[in-house]
Amino acid sequence: MDSSLENLIRRLGRLPGLGPRSARRAVLFLLKNRDRLMLPLAQELHDIARTVRPCVDCGNLDTADLCHICRDDRRDKSRICVVEDVGDLWAMERAAVFRGRYHVLGGTLSALDGRGPDDLAIDRLLRRAQAGEVVEIILALSATVDGQTTAHYIAEKLAPSNLDVTRLAHGVPVGGELDYLDDGTLAQALKARAKMN
Amino acid sequence: MDSSLENLIRRLGRLPGLGPRSARRAVLFLLKNRDRLMLPLAQELHDIARTVRPCVDCGNLDTADLCHICRDDRRDKSRICVVEDVGDLWAMERAAVFRGRYHVLGGTLSALDGRGPDDLAIDRLLRRAQAGEVVEIILALSATVDGQTTAHYIAEKLAPSNLDVTRLAHGVPVGGELDYLDDGTLAQALKARAKMN
Ligand SMILES: [Zn+2]
Ligand SMILES: [Zn+2]
Repeated sequence: MDSSLENLIRRLGRLPGLGPRSARRAVLFLLKNRDRLMLPLAQELHDIARTVRPCVDCGNLDTADLCHICRDDRRDKSRICVVEDVGDLWAMERAAVFRGRYHVLGGTLSALDGRGPDDLAIDRLLRRAQAGEVVEIILALSATVDGQTTAHYIAEKLAPSNLDVTRLAHGVPVGGELDYLDDGTLAQALKARAKMN
Repeated sequence: MDSSLENLIRRLGRLPGLGPRSARRAVLFLLKNRDRLMLPLAQELHDIARTVRPCVDCGNLDTADLCHICRDDRRDKSRICVVEDVGDLWAMERAAVFRGRYHVLGGTLSALDGRGPDDLAIDRLLRRAQAGEVVEIILALSATVDGQTTAHYIAEKLAPSNLDVTRLAHGVPVGGELDYLDDGTLAQALKARAKMN
């Protein structure tokens, strides 16, 4: 194979979800659609690598200093939803149930990976929380040990304030079958059971 | 989401093997690796879209008019392996068992898709076959109705010549389990059974 094609396939194959086989298929597909797909994709990758940056307020990714969510006056300034990364922010936005603002931590505390509070955007969150208009901080972090450690750490830091600090409910995922769930989830779902009548 | 990011995710999601979910993960991964991955990828996509073209002899993709296989004097000029597309050529090369040259047809004859002989590189194959140094044409086409129709069409066209026209053997794939095979393959494998002693 031509070495430039080999390099492109190797590079594409490093993307999550693309192995060598799908990278090869992708390159052939791109070469069949040069004007409609390959060249626009090259241009977009170049432009976005140069222009997209973290929002100075919340850490969301955007082409402007202040992201479109923080710029949007119709969004509720009184509630901040804390997420680990931008992927989680996107997931919340797709669910379209939260109309407040976000705060991207940039990960969780992790003893194993050596990530402490200074490696996350926690200080900036505490400053935003003191802004006066904020009434609730929703900790939408993973239900993992590291996620929950991080949630408790932040909740403690926020304790002196008069803010509501909440977390997402645990329970059975919608459409989830019981026998695929781990015991912890089942226990939490039972404890938080709701009346049906 | 920022509209430029939305566009990039939509475009990446059109690649075979990448759905919307993996396209989102890929974009976040690219943004985390801008200098090492995103910008080089943009450059390679741009350069390859501008420079890679079909080999004038065999139809393989390369940055030169004559591909590196056709340029390679150590390869056997007397055997031409006919494949449907460049992906199949790459698969043969990965297997590293064929040291001759190739001919990329650009698909198969197809009544359903309205592809006739003039839509494939068949005339060029017949010209190459008459070049004198060629002794064998190997038809490495899919074992589908369209693939076999195409193989028979080409074999007929080559009948007046004195060339060997061969096709790949049918049989049980190496590592394949019998009860996953279709009846046709099993029948062919039985018919072509080989002595073990
Ligand atoms: Zn923002
Ligand atoms: Zn060639």
